[in-house]
Amino acid sequence: MKTKSVEDIVLEIKDKSELMVDLAYSSILYDNKTIAKEVYDLEDLVDSLYRDIQKITLENVKNKGFGISDALTVLRLAECGEKISDAAQEIADVELRDVELHPILKMSIRESDVVFTRVQVGPQSILCGKTLGELKLGSETGMYVRAMRHGDRWVYGPDKNTRIDRGDVLFARGPEDGEKHLINLATGKTRKI
Amino acid sequence: MKTKSVEDIVLEIKDKSELMVDLAYSSILYDNKTIAKEVYDLEDLVDSLYRDIQKITLENVKNKGFGISDALTVLRLAECGEKISDAAQEIADVELRDVELHPILKMSIRESDVVFTRVQVGPQSILCGKTLGELKLGSETGMYVRAMRHGDRWVYGPDKNTRIDRGDVLFARGPEDGEKHLINLATGKTRKI
Repeated sequence: MKTKSVEDIVLEIKDKSELMVDLAYSSILYDNKTIAKEVYDLEDLVDSLYRDIQKITLENVKNKGFGISDALTVLRLAECGEKISDAAQEIADVELRDVELHPILKMSIRESDVVFTRVQVGPQSILCGKTLGELKLGSETGMYVRAMRHGDRWVYGPDKNTRIDRGDVLFARGPEDGEKHLINLATGKTRKI
Repeated sequence: MKTKSVEDIVLEIKDKSELMVDLAYSSILYDNKTIAKEVYDLEDLVDSLYRDIQKITLENVKNKGFGISDALTVLRLAECGEKISDAAQEIADVELRDVELHPILKMSIRESDVVFTRVQVGPQSILCGKTLGELKLGSETGMYVRAMRHGDRWVYGPDKNTRIDRGDVLFARGPEDGEKHLINLATGKTRKI
């Protein structure tokens, strides 16, 4: 197995930690323990990436002429991502402690700058059978799918190759008017992206 | 002055901490100390919000019949936001320590799931003279403006009432194909949103 570069790992920690924050808020908003548990699993992954990057950075400094200043920056950025993922895990922990979020607090979190939404894809939806890459949902609606339930299977942080099928449940975040567009597309009310 | 509710403060901490993370990454990508310093100012604000929410929560428990479980959730969520804002400040600190990010690392961060972009609004752009609310940039392009420079003035976390004028520099984040659309709109190459 090719060893990952420190840049790859910094990026992976950054992306995973941001995904975790989105998933953690979704888990408490939709009272969803499956998503909350995924945040826990991702936290294990980020911890392991953080240990890897510390080791590889030190090896690079010792053997590959990696400068002290670059090494410090890498360690610092990785540490920040790790802290963000810790915070996300604590948010998910609110869900796993079996405490239902107070409705007013729930409403307040939903109404932030960026809204979270959950919608099921109906049989008439033009989203059916297309990949996220083909649909360009992100740039066409502003909504960013962060998790999907497909039957019993979950996809976390889906990418451009992930296909949407009828019955899938999408968990997404984005601007308020994007939410309505996505819901209309998923329910089949709007036939044009 | 009306006292803010705990829900308002949870929301404010959440939004500000996420804005800080975006600004912090923008500051290191575009080597921009002004944005990095704003992250520091926002961290002071979040610290102060965090102290407020602890006090108000305790008062609510003592005098207003606020339940222990709801109070714990509020404190927990506020603490998570405060941790995220700490991490954002540490990212901004990388910029303020006068260390230029290694080009490979910079490229790697830019190429994450969500790209960051910076673009100046040209005189021919259809964005000129319109507010973010009128343009619905977020849902039409997927790009989310997180900071703007207007002459010597900066706007951080602009809202729907913020107007774009020629010469403004937009710092935004969003999906890769949204970036191209925003750049074409800002430069005037695309005349239709």
